[in-house]
Amino acid sequence: MPAITGNDYIERIDHLKTCVWIDGALVTGKISEHPAFKGVMKSQAALYDLQHAESLKDVMTYPSPSTGEPVGMSYLQPKTSDDLIKRRAMIQQWAISNNGMMGRSPDYMNTVLMAFASSVNFLKGKENCFPENIIKFYEYARENDVSMTHTFIDPQVNRAKFYFEDTDEPIAAKVMEKNEEGIIIKGARLLATQGGITDEIVVFSAGGIQDKAKSFAFSIPSDSKGLKFVCRDSFVEGDSSFNYPLSSRFEEMDSIVIFDNVLVPWERVFYYDNIEVSNKFMASSSFLPFTLHQAVSRQIVKTEFVLGIVQSIIDTINIVEYQHVQEKASEIIVALETMKALVIKSEIEAKIDEWGFMRPDQTTLQIAINLFPRVYPRFTEIIQLLSASGLMTIPTEKTFQSSIRKDLDQYLQAKSRNAEDRIKIFRLAWDLTMSSFGTRETLYERFFFGDPIKLSSKLYFSYDKEPYVKRVKNFLQE
Amino acid sequence: MPAITGNDYIERIDHLKTCVWIDGALVTGKISEHPAFKGVMKSQAALYDLQHAESLKDVMTYPSPSTGEPVGMSYLQPKTSDDLIKRRAMIQQWAISNNGMMGRSPDYMNTVLMAFASSVNFLKGKENCFPENIIKFYEYARENDVSMTHTFIDPQVNRAKFYFEDTDEPIAAKVMEKNEEGIIIKGARLLATQGGITDEIVVFSAGGIQDKAKSFAFSIPSDSKGLKFVCRDSFVEGDSSFNYPLSSRFEEMDSIVIFDNVLVPWERVFYYDNIEVSNKFMASSSFLPFTLHQAVSRQIVKTEFVLGIVQSIIDTINIVEYQHVQEKASEIIVALETMKALVIKSEIEAKIDEWGFMRPDQTTLQIAINLFPRVYPRFTEIIQLLSASGLMTIPTEKTFQSSIRKDLDQYLQAKSRNAEDRIKIFRLAWDLTMSSFGTRETLYERFFFGDPIKLSSKLYFSYDKEPYVKRVKNFLQE
Amino acid sequence: MPAITGNDYIERIDHLKTCVWIDGALVTGKISEHPAFKGVMKSQAALYDLQHAESLKDVMTYPSPSTGEPVGMSYLQPKTSDDLIKRRAMIQQWAISNNGMMGRSPDYMNTVLMAFASSVNFLKGKENCFPENIIKFYEYARENDVSMTHTFIDPQVNRAKFYFEDTDEPIAAKVMEKNEEGIIIKGARLLATQGGITDEIVVFSAGGIQDKAKSFAFSIPSDSKGLKFVCRDSFVEGDSSFNYPLSSRFEEMDSIVIFDNVLVPWERVFYYDNIEVSNKFMASSSFLPFTLHQAVSRQIVKTEFVLGIVQSIIDTINIVEYQHVQEKASEIIVALETMKALVIKSEIEAKIDEWGFMRPDQTTLQIAINLFPRVYPRFTEIIQLLSASGLMTIPTEKTFQSSIRKDLDQYLQAKSRNAEDRIKIFRLAWDLTMSSFGTRETLYERFFFGDPIKLSSKLYFSYDKEPYVKRVKNFLQE
Amino acid sequence: MPAITGNDYIERIDHLKTCVWIDGALVTGKISEHPAFKGVMKSQAALYDLQHAESLKDVMTYPSPSTGEPVGMSYLQPKTSDDLIKRRAMIQQWAISNNGMMGRSPDYMNTVLMAFASSVNFLKGKENCFPENIIKFYEYARENDVSMTHTFIDPQVNRAKFYFEDTDEPIAAKVMEKNEEGIIIKGARLLATQGGITDEIVVFSAGGIQDKAKSFAFSIPSDSKGLKFVCRDSFVEGDSSFNYPLSSRFEEMDSIVIFDNVLVPWERVFYYDNIEVSNKFMASSSFLPFTLHQAVSRQIVKTEFVLGIVQSIIDTINIVEYQHVQEKASEIIVALETMKALVIKSEIEAKIDEWGFMRPDQTTLQIAINLFPRVYPRFTEIIQLLSASGLMTIPTEKTFQSSIRKDLDQYLQAKSRNAEDRIKIFRLAWDLTMSSFGTRETLYERFFFGDPIKLSSKLYFSYDKEPYVKRVKNFLQE
Repeated sequence: MPAITGNDYIERIDHLKTCVWIDGALVTGKISEHPAFKGVMKSQAALYDLQHAESLKDVMTYPSPSTGEPVGMSYLQPKTSDDLIKRRAMIQQWAISNNGMMGRSPDYMNTVLMAFASSVNFLKGKENCFPENIIKFYEYARENDVSMTHTFIDPQVNRAKFYFEDTDEPIAAKVMEKNEEGIIIKGARLLATQGGITDEIVVFSAGGIQDKAKSFAFSIPSDSKGLKFVCRDSFVEGDSSFNYPLSSRFEEMDSIVIFDNVLVPWERVFYYDNIEVSNKFMASSSFLPFTLHQAVSRQIVKTEFVLGIVQSIIDTINIVEYQHVQEKASEIIVALETMKALVIKSEIEAKIDEWGFMRPDQTTLQIAINLFPRVYPRFTEIIQLLSASGLMTIPTEKTFQSSIRKDLDQYLQAKSRNAEDRIKIFRLAWDLTMSSFGTRETLYERFFFGDPIKLSSKLYFSYDKEPYVKRVKNFLQE
Repeated sequence: MPAITGNDYIERIDHLKTCVWIDGALVTGKISEHPAFKGVMKSQAALYDLQHAESLKDVMTYPSPSTGEPVGMSYLQPKTSDDLIKRRAMIQQWAISNNGMMGRSPDYMNTVLMAFASSVNFLKGKENCFPENIIKFYEYARENDVSMTHTFIDPQVNRAKFYFEDTDEPIAAKVMEKNEEGIIIKGARLLATQGGITDEIVVFSAGGIQDKAKSFAFSIPSDSKGLKFVCRDSFVEGDSSFNYPLSSRFEEMDSIVIFDNVLVPWERVFYYDNIEVSNKFMASSSFLPFTLHQAVSRQIVKTEFVLGIVQSIIDTINIVEYQHVQEKASEIIVALETMKALVIKSEIEAKIDEWGFMRPDQTTLQIAINLFPRVYPRFTEIIQLLSASGLMTIPTEKTFQSSIRKDLDQYLQAKSRNAEDRIKIFRLAWDLTMSSFGTRETLYERFFFGDPIKLSSKLYFSYDKEPYVKRVKNFLQE
Repeated sequence: MPAITGNDYIERIDHLKTCVWIDGALVTGKISEHPAFKGVMKSQAALYDLQHAESLKDVMTYPSPSTGEPVGMSYLQPKTSDDLIKRRAMIQQWAISNNGMMGRSPDYMNTVLMAFASSVNFLKGKENCFPENIIKFYEYARENDVSMTHTFIDPQVNRAKFYFEDTDEPIAAKVMEKNEEGIIIKGARLLATQGGITDEIVVFSAGGIQDKAKSFAFSIPSDSKGLKFVCRDSFVEGDSSFNYPLSSRFEEMDSIVIFDNVLVPWERVFYYDNIEVSNKFMASSSFLPFTLHQAVSRQIVKTEFVLGIVQSIIDTINIVEYQHVQEKASEIIVALETMKALVIKSEIEAKIDEWGFMRPDQTTLQIAINLFPRVYPRFTEIIQLLSASGLMTIPTEKTFQSSIRKDLDQYLQAKSRNAEDRIKIFRLAWDLTMSSFGTRETLYERFFFGDPIKLSSKLYFSYDKEPYVKRVKNFLQE
Repeated sequence: MPAITGNDYIERIDHLKTCVWIDGALVTGKISEHPAFKGVMKSQAALYDLQHAESLKDVMTYPSPSTGEPVGMSYLQPKTSDDLIKRRAMIQQWAISNNGMMGRSPDYMNTVLMAFASSVNFLKGKENCFPENIIKFYEYARENDVSMTHTFIDPQVNRAKFYFEDTDEPIAAKVMEKNEEGIIIKGARLLATQGGITDEIVVFSAGGIQDKAKSFAFSIPSDSKGLKFVCRDSFVEGDSSFNYPLSSRFEEMDSIVIFDNVLVPWERVFYYDNIEVSNKFMASSSFLPFTLHQAVSRQIVKTEFVLGIVQSIIDTINIVEYQHVQEKASEIIVALETMKALVIKSEIEAKIDEWGFMRPDQTTLQIAINLFPRVYPRFTEIIQLLSASGLMTIPTEKTFQSSIRKDLDQYLQAKSRNAEDRIKIFRLAWDLTMSSFGTRETLYERFFFGDPIKLSSKLYFSYDKEPYVKRVKNFLQE
């Protein structure tokens, strides 16, 4: 089954017996009908369906190298600049369908896996490394349009610089033993977005590992024995898309992943017990350039949506004449065009890597990922500053359906919108910036590629400043 | 009935037949048992009860000038600096009981009314003004500990500089006619916080009125005929104080107020049909200095709470060693001590006004109110930046009560807290900064005394810059 | 004489009898030997000489369309994307020779004129317009490598929104009369950078003209009768490039231009007495896209220099380990790569305009010009924050040449530099950010394309937000 | 000679044979006539003269406890709140005479010494400590109105966290040996402001000493044998107070202090060879509260001057109607009133210390000193943003005295000022924010009490956050 439909996706996930805890109860029955998951699963299904829209086929899929059947474009291993542009077109097509609200639309994880597969040569011949397992899993995923989540952070026990876990039982997930069938994992990991509503979970490390037992990478089905997903409370507050235009559709959920002596079969182990590889694979592989390219492309679409909302608010209550309003809106325009420019530059300056794949320029994308966590929260602030009481004057759908409606129609009308349309816009603005869903989106963008301060440091150290230091030196010697 | 108890308050409100619409339905039955209101009414009741705590009697009440019975200290008309300090002690005592989360604890409205009563001389002898009605109502409120809300903004139809309503039916509330019994009001007003759970609603204008029919001030009981309160959706997401430590207790609700030909009896009219008075009373009365003094005193307590939360987070996950963490926490300390200093200065520089009352220095308090809307949102940002994934790793109370608890105990423990205590802190931080309740608090503080940009302009124009201009002039002539 | 040498430039300027007032005296004798001008003229001459460097000929010049002789690349009217890239290469080559410090290196004005010449069709057939004069002057300038300055702002008398000059004598320059020979101009204009050290001065309006007599454009020789340049004080503080590495070389001077009944001969009049043309030519012509392309290309080189200085400081006193230092340096990296990305995008998205020339995308360049005035001052702040007392510990060249030198060698040594090299770096940092020259550079970048707040508004109004508003609308109707 | 006159000061300094190097030459002759020093010495002299102004005697002096003669109020050891207010009155009186531009007006150092003298009990009975020498020197200074500078930072060789000097010859000043007469110091120290134009130099450590030989404190006459002051270049650019209204008067100079085997006689040694005392004296003594009180009081006056300039600019070019202008000006108002509030709070919350002196609240003053380095640079930015080209259109005094003046009068007139007055205001604004003098003032305020980031950390660690943590804890247990 190559590029799947939404229905395929939903059936496959419903069919799994994934252990998902939410609000003190195990999810039983079809997870696609559970109030916390049904909205987002429907939105995800819609993404898969887009792959079969006649007009988008060429955008969303390409012929499988093994079968010729259409497979998801996000699996495409790019070899030319044109391939990068194709990838971007697909990413943004999907993003438009949720206005960039789904940080974990399938292209994200597909890209992760594609990047791993394009970097397997790094693992060749290294101890406890199984590059062939990555290739095999990549092909399996591509040909079956497997949905995935991932986890790569240890629990937040102690964030001091020099902290070594020192407990009888593991807290952070680690290899407890290995046997004929595979390796046994025990402990926890943070934070699987969409955890519980994907076929598989990919598990690896972000680097900085000091304990051999924590140096591993693998993928396993979500319903593996002993694997548990523990959710935060759902931010779906109701089904009404009038009341909750975003959260009713795009609440992806985040879950703690617990490994209760989970067996990872050997054919699914990518590497283990190899600290060096574990700490270098992320940096040496094309993981960063490809996932950043995906993320930034999506964030552009999200920013366009923000701009659309801001302009709608300005129109609705007619505040365009104020210079500070113009200035605030133009902050968003500046951010939007900057993000666009950075993606273009990353593609223009893309280079073939040592393994033959076309990597977008990583430094350029690092700029974008240093920028976005600073501007996105500002967007939400701008929306609040422009909307003022408009974000508190937000009666619900049922109120509009009640006998009080005629009052609302009169008293909540706006310059260029009737009461209902006006409230729809403000409820959307509220759901983006003030609902539990909206603030989680903000937090998500703040930390999407890690702590902003560490991102700064990484950029600083990886950037080649030497030519400019030399220019100064030469100038001083003139 | 002088200083009431919580029970008095609840019974009185339950007894009213106030017309409150929420989510498409009229509230029937006891409003104190309605899920959207019960938490905050209980918290409000607790405030009234504090008036009777043996140890706090002298802080919370003073002897009524008419009966000698204890009445609420917030009604005290200050005549000395010491009176101001007494008022602050009371305000902060109440604020501590909700950590400053209740912007409309009764002292706020009591202060409004006290300020009006202390400024009635301004109205004396002016057309269509009834200063004696204010005095009478003030005494009635003081002696009966009447709870109140207010409304003073027109609906947000069109925020252009030059906008004149031009519809057949009024949108903004106005006087439609007067008769023997009183004046008849039709139209809407924004935004009554606690609308529906107070005895009375005070209605007046913030100034800038150009239409005579909109120039009025009065107070009427919440259950006046034709008066409707239309609520936004409730941000109470559940009763659990584990899950929602703040919203389950302090969600004050905001409502649109609709006047459907409401009769205001003459004895409750403060003034009407007098544009000049309507536009000048706010500025000339002691409304601003006294309400600002109340607000800033409360905001100090709220800032202390924020600092407590921030420090608790730092301890919990042990991030104290990072310079940027220290810097962020010290931003809060700077804001806290600055707010404290400003209140002190306003009291030190208080002056007896033309009518014999001791006004805290208004300019100094304007500084505070220009500052707080800028720092408070930054506090919430700091909490998010320090907490990171901690604000997504937040399983619910029921999860802790389920069989998965032992896993949580192991995997969610933190450096200096067990799992449960750690989640409690992070859920509190989440409820303050990311829940719908928390973001509404942020919006509330952003706009508490109006649009931040207009506040800036007002400060600029009211501040006496001349002495410094002269100093420059003299210097240039030396 | 096509592409000239530095010597040609200097001789030509010295030969003029331009009326330049500085510090109460008329410049007499060779202006190239005047302390206020000799440094910058030498630097300018070096630019012209680069045109003849064997290795750079193809970068700096192209064959004249009329004679085939090499003429300055900045005169090239681009017809392809490749032409834009050629232009950028030339701009940045010149910029590197002064590290972007010369805002008015000749390519700037040459680009202005090229843009005018490429837009003359706009003027065709319009009243009082002489497009053929522009073409003629453009060709003359190109074939003779004429150096130019310009002026387009009225004196800063009263910056209120509605201000109309109402004096007997003109303040802002205007046409007083016309006669057979040409038009007569009287009044003043701000601010000619390099005024007095160029062959010609181009005079036009930035738009917003309401008085017919002010609606004109022309070019005249700097030594036209009645034309006076009144300078501010020179920021050259000495010849020592040790002490003043930047100001001794790149101080371009700004001057008020006074027209004392200056005759502009008809063949040099581009248009006059045509308010509409005067107000629309700037916006309709390719002035903005081409000059912005020049400016942003130069600002990139300047930013590289800033980064080089910052990194040199970090190395010198060994502060690389501090996270906040890394963060500050990475702010500059982010700005640099963003500016680079924007130029690339403007070239990628360039389009042939109605008159057949290839315009870089104006919106994209507007983003850059909204950004740079905000980041450049921050660069200077970062340099100060990293350098601390290093910017006060800056003995002069003569101190190093005196007997106290051995003490300096011992006590001013730094981690990775000897005392002399260390002081050179810090004096450079000081000259960039703290000398009168350096702060004038900051002011220059703050206002290069106008008031930052107006730039914001312009961007807001010119940007097409409609597609995103529509996306929101569609989303709300789903 | 108690409270001296300006003349006394000048004669005394001229009489010294202090070794001052500037621009490669030793100052010979009267230093009060040297172009680099004459302006500031005259301004300093004017301060001393104020002590004898009939109307200010009681403000500026108090009766010496030993002789009853009037001595400088800055020597007053405060024992009551009223004494603090007296001290502030004196500080601000002096500050007004230079508009806060002289960071090292004599009250600063007098306060340092007063604080030392008020804390000598800390040294009693400790090894190598001579509290009696401090008392003696304090009394000597008070009774003779001795002018002083100080130095307490090591040269900026290597700012890494773990740096230990490892050279044959000392770089940072240290004790080389001791003998009968005293201790011998060799090495350098940064940065003596006013170094060379004071009677004495006080030398001590800011703390963090790890090398015994660097743990000392003493005072010696400026002309001690082997003591050299090496100046940066002077920022006095001329005598004209039209051209340089600030730098011609208030350029205090900063110098490197070199100890070439300087003998400090025993009676002038305060302590030596005692790391613990050296590292604790600053923190335990009243140094911080008293010097902060002085500094903040001065910064208030400086801020008033900034506000005066800003308002003068707004008036001059008539930009008051712009909301962003009002907002920017109100930023300064907010800062000014905040600083005032903090000083008042520090006095209100002053407490008698263990040695019987009335210390202003240190924490409150730390807030001010965390704030000012952030707002002052913003002031200079605001001035630039409001002035725009006005800061480049600044012809000199001589230009006004030349025949071109009539043109200036016409073309540089402003809305509410004639050309000359307008240029005076803008030159003042320029001298404050853009001249080498002005930028040095900015740098000075940025780092007045140390690196802003370290100041943040110190505040964080010294602040008592526990009560608020407890409040959170209690709240969570409710």
